[in-house]
Amino acid sequence: MSFNTFGRVFRFTTWGESHGPALGAVVDGCPPGIALSEADIQPWLDKRRPGQSRFTTQRREPDQVRILSGVFDGRTTGTPISLMIENVDQRSKDYSDVALAYRPGHADYAYDAKYGFRDYRGGGRSSARETAARVAAGAVARAVVPQVRVRAWVEAIGGDEIDPAAFDDAQIDANPFFCPDAAAAARWEEKVDAARKSGSSLGAVIACEATGVPAGWGAPLYAKLDSELASAIMSINAVKGVEIGDGFAAAALSGEENADPMRPGNGGPRFLANHAGGIAGGIATGQPIRVRAAFKPTSSILTPVETITRTGEAADIATKGRHDPCVGIRGVPVVEAMVALVLADQALLHRAQCG
Amino acid sequence: MSFNTFGRVFRFTTWGESHGPALGAVVDGCPPGIALSEADIQPWLDKRRPGQSRFTTQRREPDQVRILSGVFDGRTTGTPISLMIENVDQRSKDYSDVALAYRPGHADYAYDAKYGFRDYRGGGRSSARETAARVAAGAVARAVVPQVRVRAWVEAIGGDEIDPAAFDDAQIDANPFFCPDAAAAARWEEKVDAARKSGSSLGAVIACEATGVPAGWGAPLYAKLDSELASAIMSINAVKGVEIGDGFAAAALSGEENADPMRPGNGGPRFLANHAGGIAGGIATGQPIRVRAAFKPTSSILTPVETITRTGEAADIATKGRHDPCVGIRGVPVVEAMVALVLADQALLHRAQCG
Amino acid sequence: MSFNTFGRVFRFTTWGESHGPALGAVVDGCPPGIALSEADIQPWLDKRRPGQSRFTTQRREPDQVRILSGVFDGRTTGTPISLMIENVDQRSKDYSDVALAYRPGHADYAYDAKYGFRDYRGGGRSSARETAARVAAGAVARAVVPQVRVRAWVEAIGGDEIDPAAFDDAQIDANPFFCPDAAAAARWEEKVDAARKSGSSLGAVIACEATGVPAGWGAPLYAKLDSELASAIMSINAVKGVEIGDGFAAAALSGEENADPMRPGNGGPRFLANHAGGIAGGIATGQPIRVRAAFKPTSSILTPVETITRTGEAADIATKGRHDPCVGIRGVPVVEAMVALVLADQALLHRAQCG
Amino acid sequence: MSFNTFGRVFRFTTWGESHGPALGAVVDGCPPGIALSEADIQPWLDKRRPGQSRFTTQRREPDQVRILSGVFDGRTTGTPISLMIENVDQRSKDYSDVALAYRPGHADYAYDAKYGFRDYRGGGRSSARETAARVAAGAVARAVVPQVRVRAWVEAIGGDEIDPAAFDDAQIDANPFFCPDAAAAARWEEKVDAARKSGSSLGAVIACEATGVPAGWGAPLYAKLDSELASAIMSINAVKGVEIGDGFAAAALSGEENADPMRPGNGGPRFLANHAGGIAGGIATGQPIRVRAAFKPTSSILTPVETITRTGEAADIATKGRHDPCVGIRGVPVVEAMVALVLADQALLHRAQCG
Repeated sequence: MSFNTFGRVFRFTTWGESHGPALGAVVDGCPPGIALSEADIQPWLDKRRPGQSRFTTQRREPDQVRILSGVFDGRTTGTPISLMIENVDQRSKDYSDVALAYRPGHADYAYDAKYGFRDYRGGGRSSARETAARVAAGAVARAVVPQVRVRAWVEAIGGDEIDPAAFDDAQIDANPFFCPDAAAAARWEEKVDAARKSGSSLGAVIACEATGVPAGWGAPLYAKLDSELASAIMSINAVKGVEIGDGFAAAALSGEENADPMRPGNGGPRFLANHAGGIAGGIATGQPIRVRAAFKPTSSILTPVETITRTGEAADIATKGRHDPCVGIRGVPVVEAMVALVLADQALLHRAQCG
Repeated sequence: MSFNTFGRVFRFTTWGESHGPALGAVVDGCPPGIALSEADIQPWLDKRRPGQSRFTTQRREPDQVRILSGVFDGRTTGTPISLMIENVDQRSKDYSDVALAYRPGHADYAYDAKYGFRDYRGGGRSSARETAARVAAGAVARAVVPQVRVRAWVEAIGGDEIDPAAFDDAQIDANPFFCPDAAAAARWEEKVDAARKSGSSLGAVIACEATGVPAGWGAPLYAKLDSELASAIMSINAVKGVEIGDGFAAAALSGEENADPMRPGNGGPRFLANHAGGIAGGIATGQPIRVRAAFKPTSSILTPVETITRTGEAADIATKGRHDPCVGIRGVPVVEAMVALVLADQALLHRAQCG
Repeated sequence: MSFNTFGRVFRFTTWGESHGPALGAVVDGCPPGIALSEADIQPWLDKRRPGQSRFTTQRREPDQVRILSGVFDGRTTGTPISLMIENVDQRSKDYSDVALAYRPGHADYAYDAKYGFRDYRGGGRSSARETAARVAAGAVARAVVPQVRVRAWVEAIGGDEIDPAAFDDAQIDANPFFCPDAAAAARWEEKVDAARKSGSSLGAVIACEATGVPAGWGAPLYAKLDSELASAIMSINAVKGVEIGDGFAAAALSGEENADPMRPGNGGPRFLANHAGGIAGGIATGQPIRVRAAFKPTSSILTPVETITRTGEAADIATKGRHDPCVGIRGVPVVEAMVALVLADQALLHRAQCG
Repeated sequence: MSFNTFGRVFRFTTWGESHGPALGAVVDGCPPGIALSEADIQPWLDKRRPGQSRFTTQRREPDQVRILSGVFDGRTTGTPISLMIENVDQRSKDYSDVALAYRPGHADYAYDAKYGFRDYRGGGRSSARETAARVAAGAVARAVVPQVRVRAWVEAIGGDEIDPAAFDDAQIDANPFFCPDAAAAARWEEKVDAARKSGSSLGAVIACEATGVPAGWGAPLYAKLDSELASAIMSINAVKGVEIGDGFAAAALSGEENADPMRPGNGGPRFLANHAGGIAGGIATGQPIRVRAAFKPTSSILTPVETITRTGEAADIATKGRHDPCVGIRGVPVVEAMVALVLADQALLHRAQCG
């Protein structure tokens, strides 16, 4: 079943395909009286926008957002906020290859298996262009929880990891890779260039930290803060893994090694470690929330791959056209948006139940 | 906000605390006419039941399930199925330690921060006893999708991994660790025994495979099959990471290495690899669904850990009492249950939209 | 699809059949720290309990509620509250009549058409016994919004209406009809007795007023306060109509006649009329909320009615056994419960969005 | 809380204000492969369009719908269908009256009480213009359940009722009142003209019938077909009452009078009456579904009404500008749309659970 709405009380619904006239999001449940204009949203879209360096797809989209409802006199009214972004650069081309044969790793075959047919132009609904709508909605979420700072970066590309000791927040926006380690950024430039030139692609790991989340947001069980984050992150195209705090590394630790001891602090505990990533029992502890996401390499590669056609014959397919050599890079603002959207929802839910 | 219901059309709601009179689940939306009795549910609860070996908690709970509604003449009626399990072995003890000071890594502090107070007896609602209700609901889910086989096992304990080449399905039920590799099981016996004796604890990695899922189940975006699985798995106590298919390993691959090529097969493609874990674009491809979960070591350890009291003073706390030295082991039937529950929901959703 | 959960953030799920071992409700999303015990719930169940006068069914059920979870040290913990009521007086009888032929006006045929078979004992899930679970949940709702007073009464039985001028709140609990007009109560005694003796049944109109609801609760559009109330009331067995404020009478008025003029008051407007029933644009105005519900006469009558059997043959059926001659009477506490449940949900939703 | 989404698996979300740039709906969960174009939607919008006779508001809106997503090659793809209608005739005028003082009966005061401020231009989100989006979504719903015919008409205006014996389906589209009784239409012409000229307004009763609904759609309890219909209808601006079948009239009947006897028929029972309006126990019986809605007279009248200003002073307010003298008339396509939307949702839900 197609569920294009996310959230419980702060909800957003996205719509639109890669090659339709437009795409957008409807944000529902936003508190009233929050200052909001297109200028608050555009910078985040710009961060995600394609065509800004040679390391991302060369599709040129201005991604100008319009607010069509829900804002009056510069403030949210409490009614649904409709955000629309027009598609501009749907390059007219011949899609017969993709229409007739399945690209392995893409959603092509699965969509056909489910729906009987598909909008094959640029991936249709399965295109990463949909994430523009999330980023727009995420900007609204940020305005709902201004006390929270959500910040993501790339930790690894193609298995080449940053040096944690070299982490420099200022670097993140200083290179085209959202890389906090200048030396790694230099290495990645070469690496991604090579992949781009050979028509290959690379996976990436994104990390995200949210600070300013008060202890108490979140909930036990099926809307646990970590469960909601996992759902949100795993809903992003190309993501195949999610970790909270130490994640899989914690599975190799003993209880002593994994402990987050507490000492008295100012207005709450002072934690001596944060293996848990700021969440215990599904509820925020007041520490920074830490999430990691694994992005697979995009399946769009020039090397021909064995496949079958719609009618079941063997074929080889190579994906030409404009693609991200490392789709994880542009995942950074998308991960941030999803984390912000979850936190805005949880903030309102916490207020509902606990005042 | 407390959301104790999971699922969209096949839904279940759990209730109950570790030391209350009982716990249970209400399964709603189950199709009518399915043969179901307590005997169909009990074996799965028995698999999860504590006190079966020295490697799990020594709490002795028969975990006898009763069906209180929704079944008539041995078949489901389409109305809500109420399942109840009585708590028997709530050992009467002094909880003053836990009531007064927070156990680091437990939900104690977070619950107090959220709710202002908590049921501290045996962890209250945050206890892993809640997962008994999930396992019972999961047995109903299995009956809804009998064509699907859901099978989980332990892949690593405390960082000691199985040898994939030694994988033997028959071994999984032949040792107390749900370990498919007899040699690893032997090593783990020693390892877990050591942890148990020293009052320490160990993390674990659980893998789960679902076969028989037809291509087409699942959906794009916010109810993607992978997103729903991530949410379900991450909602289990102690889970800190989720992977679909190759997960984080995929982030280190190139597009060529990560490809899942297709050849013509019988009534659908024959895939030459399954890096994607059986899901593309959120929709099942017909390959086995593969999920992995990272369980942290339980925070209940004998070694005193620095903490604070409810009133903010420094203290040390050691968790005595009956605990699992490796809570991941008993996570095996719980992971299976959650995967079955997601698949039953997705099966009905697929039928709703696509007939 | 079976949806046995009601509410958006303050939610309850009911389960159970007329002749199963028990029935119950799980209340989820309740704020923490609210004083709650079985003694707070029982009086409302007692008000609804059958067998208290000769004007209701003679089934004898003590309807003793047990709280199985979610309450600790006399206060709600914020986790799900499981409420259970055992069925005691499931008179062992021969149901072959009902199993084989459909009672017109009952859910018998519709259930069979939907599910293929049904639990025919006492109406199974379609029995009004399910409303006991609602009344129990409603008592929790009352504790969530203690500033609100929800009060229902019977306005008409079998078309015989009370005299509004004779309305006396003290009378409502002074007769077995929840009738605020002593003279009408006297007439109804005769009327209902006649129906009872002849094995007939009568319809009724219930009115309900909620005072203390602050201006602002509610919402535009699909969770409008009036829309939520309509859904809640229409979900009660035997209800066929719902009105807010003047309801259908308003359709015969002009704009001038229907106006609710305002004058300055203390801390808000003073309204000079309340045609709107306290709701404008889906949002409470601060005036009393006024709702009315039409209960049809129960279809269980001694007069044989033409019907068909499960196998499609013509038959006549008369409903023997214990039944309410006027099921609307016992609808009073159920309507109150549903209104309280809607208001508790809206109170939390309002706090979520508007602080 | 603002909930602008309706439906459980076939869902739609509306957005937009009376005087914003546009309004629209996102329809989610639509089955794939259904033929759909703007030409399938436009006729229903045309039916609702203002300015078509002197009996409706003189605002001139072409209400041209655009499909922005979810349709490819003339068929639905299974992904969200975004529908947009631009606002054209937002007459530039001075709203200072409405901005400063509350119009009794409107949502003005309630919105301010809830949100602290409001978009006062043309009623903002509370304007009946929002219903254009519902009508557009309703056209999609009709395509989902083509076997169902949903047909509404006006039964009474200002208390003047049609003669049931004079019912003529062909008349409904032959006069500007959707009136099935030619004689009543003639009377109403005079009546509504008088109200229009004097700046007054009139209430109305709308009836709606859905034929072709198979026995079995619907569900017990909180998503009962009647409960869903009540919620849907009561969410329409100006509706204050909803009846299923005989509604309030049933409350005055005896069980014998209210019975719907059955005789053997072709492939199911033949019912000898339809007091129940085609629904028993929340589930369709296969008879025509019958619903009635009470529309209050619009509060926009020229006669000055006592009110207060935003700052709490006494004032008088008269509503000038373009308004419907009888808003119920244009409610006809809106009621039809909501009934179609509920039935499409229930059709998919039934398929989900019962195959």
